[in-house]
Amino acid sequence: MHYSAGIQSLLPLFYIGWADSVLSPSEMKTIRKLVNRMDFLSFTDKRQLIQWTDPDSPPSHETYKNWLMDIQEGSLNYSIDKKLSLVQLGIELAKNAANFKDSNRWDSLEVKASIAELEKALGIDNQLSQLAFYKSINPRNTYHLEDISGFDPKILQTILDGKYADVKSQAKKLLMDPFFRVPYDLKNKEELRNLILDQCIEIAKQGYGASAYPKEYGGENSSGANTAFFETMALGNISLLVKFGVQFGLFGGAILQLGTKKHHEQYLADTGSLKLVGCFAMTETGHGSNVRNLETTAKYNHDSRSLTIHTPTNSAGKEYIGNALHATMAVVFAQLSIGDLNYGIHAVMVPLRDKNHKELTGITIEDNGYKMGLNGVDNGRIWFDDVAVPIANLLNKYGGIDEKGNYQSSIDKESKRFFTMLGALVGGRVSVAMASNTATKKSLAIAIKYALKRRQFESINEDEETLILDYPTHQERLFPLVAKSYALSFALEALREKFVEQYASTDKREVETLAAGLKSYASWHATDTIQECREACGGKGYLSENEFADLKADTEIFTTFEGDNHVLLQLVAKSLLTDFKEEFNSGGFMAVARHILKRVESKATSLNPIYTGNTNSEHIQSIEFIEAAFQFRTQKLLFSLSDRMRKYMGKKINPNDIFLRTQTHMVVLAKAWIEAYIFDEFYKQIEAMAEGEEKTTLILPFKIFGLNAILEDKGFFLENDFISGDKSKAIRKNLVSLFKQMRPLANNYVDAFGIPAVLRRAEIAKD
Amino acid sequence: MHYSAGIQSLLPLFYIGWADSVLSPSEMKTIRKLVNRMDFLSFTDKRQLIQWTDPDSPPSHETYKNWLMDIQEGSLNYSIDKKLSLVQLGIELAKNAANFKDSNRWDSLEVKASIAELEKALGIDNQLSQLAFYKSINPRNTYHLEDISGFDPKILQTILDGKYADVKSQAKKLLMDPFFRVPYDLKNKEELRNLILDQCIEIAKQGYGASAYPKEYGGENSSGANTAFFETMALGNISLLVKFGVQFGLFGGAILQLGTKKHHEQYLADTGSLKLVGCFAMTETGHGSNVRNLETTAKYNHDSRSLTIHTPTNSAGKEYIGNALHATMAVVFAQLSIGDLNYGIHAVMVPLRDKNHKELTGITIEDNGYKMGLNGVDNGRIWFDDVAVPIANLLNKYGGIDEKGNYQSSIDKESKRFFTMLGALVGGRVSVAMASNTATKKSLAIAIKYALKRRQFESINEDEETLILDYPTHQERLFPLVAKSYALSFALEALREKFVEQYASTDKREVETLAAGLKSYASWHATDTIQECREACGGKGYLSENEFADLKADTEIFTTFEGDNHVLLQLVAKSLLTDFKEEFNSGGFMAVARHILKRVESKATSLNPIYTGNTNSEHIQSIEFIEAAFQFRTQKLLFSLSDRMRKYMGKKINPNDIFLRTQTHMVVLAKAWIEAYIFDEFYKQIEAMAEGEEKTTLILPFKIFGLNAILEDKGFFLENDFISGDKSKAIRKNLVSLFKQMRPLANNYVDAFGIPAVLRRAEIAKD
Repeated sequence: MHYSAGIQSLLPLFYIGWADSVLSPSEMKTIRKLVNRMDFLSFTDKRQLIQWTDPDSPPSHETYKNWLMDIQEGSLNYSIDKKLSLVQLGIELAKNAANFKDSNRWDSLEVKASIAELEKALGIDNQLSQLAFYKSINPRNTYHLEDISGFDPKILQTILDGKYADVKSQAKKLLMDPFFRVPYDLKNKEELRNLILDQCIEIAKQGYGASAYPKEYGGENSSGANTAFFETMALGNISLLVKFGVQFGLFGGAILQLGTKKHHEQYLADTGSLKLVGCFAMTETGHGSNVRNLETTAKYNHDSRSLTIHTPTNSAGKEYIGNALHATMAVVFAQLSIGDLNYGIHAVMVPLRDKNHKELTGITIEDNGYKMGLNGVDNGRIWFDDVAVPIANLLNKYGGIDEKGNYQSSIDKESKRFFTMLGALVGGRVSVAMASNTATKKSLAIAIKYALKRRQFESINEDEETLILDYPTHQERLFPLVAKSYALSFALEALREKFVEQYASTDKREVETLAAGLKSYASWHATDTIQECREACGGKGYLSENEFADLKADTEIFTTFEGDNHVLLQLVAKSLLTDFKEEFNSGGFMAVARHILKRVESKATSLNPIYTGNTNSEHIQSIEFIEAAFQFRTQKLLFSLSDRMRKYMGKKINPNDIFLRTQTHMVVLAKAWIEAYIFDEFYKQIEAMAEGEEKTTLILPFKIFGLNAILEDKGFFLENDFISGDKSKAIRKNLVSLFKQMRPLANNYVDAFGIPAVLRRAEIAKD
Repeated sequence: MHYSAGIQSLLPLFYIGWADSVLSPSEMKTIRKLVNRMDFLSFTDKRQLIQWTDPDSPPSHETYKNWLMDIQEGSLNYSIDKKLSLVQLGIELAKNAANFKDSNRWDSLEVKASIAELEKALGIDNQLSQLAFYKSINPRNTYHLEDISGFDPKILQTILDGKYADVKSQAKKLLMDPFFRVPYDLKNKEELRNLILDQCIEIAKQGYGASAYPKEYGGENSSGANTAFFETMALGNISLLVKFGVQFGLFGGAILQLGTKKHHEQYLADTGSLKLVGCFAMTETGHGSNVRNLETTAKYNHDSRSLTIHTPTNSAGKEYIGNALHATMAVVFAQLSIGDLNYGIHAVMVPLRDKNHKELTGITIEDNGYKMGLNGVDNGRIWFDDVAVPIANLLNKYGGIDEKGNYQSSIDKESKRFFTMLGALVGGRVSVAMASNTATKKSLAIAIKYALKRRQFESINEDEETLILDYPTHQERLFPLVAKSYALSFALEALREKFVEQYASTDKREVETLAAGLKSYASWHATDTIQECREACGGKGYLSENEFADLKADTEIFTTFEGDNHVLLQLVAKSLLTDFKEEFNSGGFMAVARHILKRVESKATSLNPIYTGNTNSEHIQSIEFIEAAFQFRTQKLLFSLSDRMRKYMGKKINPNDIFLRTQTHMVVLAKAWIEAYIFDEFYKQIEAMAEGEEKTTLILPFKIFGLNAILEDKGFFLENDFISGDKSKAIRKNLVSLFKQMRPLANNYVDAFGIPAVLRRAEIAKD
């Protein structure tokens, strides 16, 4: 079939608009408004075009192919110049499709202006969209990215964005819609929460909430796409990000991972569309990090085939539960018992409220009140007073109760079952790690852009005051942080790959260890960086209009939720001590003790005085030296830790004391290990690239990241004679010279983070 | 004279109530209410008692002496037991004063209950008040502090509170009044600002705003008392603290320090009483740290004997000005010129608003909007469009214009004049340094008290879960911070002494250098500590009800205002390089260059291998070793810095480049120097004490502070061979053992900060 001339005039815009797979509510409204105003369209044209903007019945794949065929035929057959703007191309298509005598009217200025208006409204009036268009209609076209100004950052961005670049770009497009803008002066928590809920519903409508779920429940079965969408959301309001995570990740994730087919069928579609608002009731006031000892009980009653959920003490109440005020149902984690036998922690679906949103009998919910940040999320406390639910509500993938009232599980051991269940929920940590880095990048972009505009004191020899980014102190404060965010990006993409791979498997120990380590590293990096950026922007950084206020307050809790960083790092250390042979999350020291009785092999680089004292720049900036430093540190710490533990065990010191005596050492080891991992992934990325400008561009943050990490911990390296005092000083000098190299490229490096100007709202960073 | 029996029954309460010199508005209201209800009082008694609660005519010194005489006579002459409660003593006094036949009715339960109610309402129903009472009516009494439980913290508190303990205690008492409580859910900035303004007016009524001003303007001429009151206010809402500082310290301080007698007479009394609300318009958008190059102009017109104040560009607008929305007048800092000649920065009193609070012609004021914190302070931007004010409005202590239109100043050189003027305003930095430490102490008290209640994981060998303060990681996170706050307390008291001494002098270089260094150190200490404490309290730390939200957001800007820390530290380094011979605040490098041409003497401790490698605990914990470390570091950094600069000068590198190349080095030197100063003051304090428990108690945080500082910078000490790798490890071991010593005393150490439970509102730290 062929579309009418009128429709063809808009096909390029519609094609590229829909190619993003996202048309936001405001965009659709705008399209309808503008289309209605176009006098050159027939009534039938308008009806057809407007129908395509209906979110409930978007253009089918068939339709999309028809568009493409018309465009290709029009633009190829009639040899249209492939560098035409999308507006002009539409007009040419229309002219070709129209009767000869009619074709002149397409050249009127009014028509062009009115199509251009639509192009602008869709945000595609730029070279990149044009390029993407021609690339997609004809893969053999001759356009090159090099033709576009601001070339470097875009290429780097492609590398940083990685496999899920499309999803990230869709998420940005969606967030850029004014509908998702939260005013800085909206402080009332009830109003904020309602706004965030509305925004979350809109995102659900677009299908992004369900993306990790199976296709039959409205999803794409893609945990990769889901995490990519999530991490990008940190560019917008972070309450919305957390609300999204609570609903689709924690609540929906628990149903998906811990429930069976009947639960998926009953709940997943409604969870993904937010028809069912749910919360994830795990943490208790008395037990935050210690999930295995939660006090809430779920007692089985065989006569009624039901479970009674009960909060035995006030401090056993569920705490900080996101969605507590909006939810109608909760996944409750409780100690499951049959008669006198306790089978450990299990998850149960418990209805919280009736159709009028009134709390059901036995349910008490209390608002957590104002928080440091995230006031758009309705956190609350929940208590259960003998609340009975049918046994069908038990999420029974790893353990259930059969019709005879007997406990059944594919995993015999209670501890193994517990750790398997917790492991299934690792997605939360993976996601928080990623979102931390996104928020960090945004802060850095603001601080660097401000430092490239701001002048303060005059130079002595020049008329103009020096830009504050020209100060070595300012470079030293910000550039290592930029380099760290680069490094983290690759480590997090690597984690995502492993996470996606192990998504369906029950053994997730590697992912769990990496997620715990990277979540800790990335969330502290966010806390430190946002703080430094705020200070680097002085008084301006303190004003809400410049974004640090919200960035700081909202991400502040990332170091605590989804596992306290200090606790997580101790788990990482235990994994290392046991060569990943024990269940992750295993609390006690005994699991570790079994393993460390055998001596950990020391793989530490053998040191010689020439190596230790080599202050040559070529040597210091060599990947070999930096890599050796990371390896040496991890090995040395692991070796000395297991050595100490073995010694204490030989002295018959009780295990609890051994654990206390070595706790700090464990945390230090875990930090060193995860930093070495980050270095390795950055290295792998660079190794995999062909020689050329792109590779060169990445080597600079790579070196800064590595040498800065060594310098930050120079005390360790000096203490253990890995470097001499002179070498330590030489490393500092090398870093200063690398900062100088980064200085003229600083803006490009933060532009490569790919943060659209609209989402970088800070007044001080406006271009 | 003798008071009636009725009045005598209340004299002990009134005496001790007024002894604090503070009766807050709510207390006075309560007294009146309760007195009115007392049936055993005659109408005349009531009228007299209520008259004494009138804030506008408080009891005279005479009256107070009469109370004392009646009390002493009654309690001594009739040999009353000196351990009676204040209520019972009042009853005994009344019985003695009453007719014999009347005396029985004083023993009724109703009378006792009703006096006890008043005692409770005044917050003096405790042993300490009783002790203070008997001590003050009879200095020879036999009560000892040892009789009171919780003895240690009180003694330590006395040492920490120092010379201005009374003022600090008055400030606490005032802040404890419910009137000064700001609800956590009050988020609307307009409402918050109005509340804070009302609170500030109440404080002014009590006379605390004016305390630094001369007596003739309602003050006490005590900059010591003023700073002590200010620092204590950080225990309450910090917006109120900042508002207080802006009004009485910055605005009033500028009038006092830069104005002459006519200005004092015209403005000071009204400023102190807050009848005149003013702001301090120094900072400009384009020039934050660089005051000398402000762009606002003040042009002299001889015909009209007036100054025209003008903002030449948008970025020359005054920025972040506190009180901008409430003020009717501003002290404006501007470039003073007569004809074509510029005489540099001067301060001018400029009316902003008329009686209806409407902006005057030529004045534009804009709200700075929401900020990260301090939303109770009305910061704004101010622009002047050719605003004329009489020449009398020029604050002309350091420079004015005579009747012939000639510039007159006691200081010839423009730069010297500028630095003298700025130096006169050093009080702000002194105050912010102190308030930083107060807020820090409060955070620590909350985090430590929570860690002494919170259990998380079970011990392996015990039934009870371990307290989180028993974890070595937790001790390592919090105890060095407690020790730092102790150390800072003494350094800040020493700074106050010097500040008070140099208050009237024009040469304040030592105070300026110390204030800059200590303000930087203390404000970063606050930022780091509040962050660590929040994280140490996990999710609970994130809830507004636990105070970290406000503490963090409100103190965050302390690292920036009253001078950006990085800029201040560079000024400190310049002072050190020039042996304090140059004006503080002097921007350029040339001033420094003149001095460093002569070689700085190296006083570094001579090192020998035995000293460097001595890992003996006695040696490591010796004051000699710790002191040597601090001295070595400062000397080494100063020596190497001046050496580098001299070398660059020899190579004819231009001064600006020399400055840039050594900027980081300067900041490092300044930090080391101020930390050494803090150590020295702590040492002096301990040296001055007699041997005994008190001294012993202080030595523990002293050692922790010293060794922790060395360990934090072990990279430096190792790099420069001051310690060996083995010694560095030994220092860590020693610290761990000192932490163990601190653990059982931790609660006492934070109690000694003297924070009343009422002002420690955090739910998690409730006793």
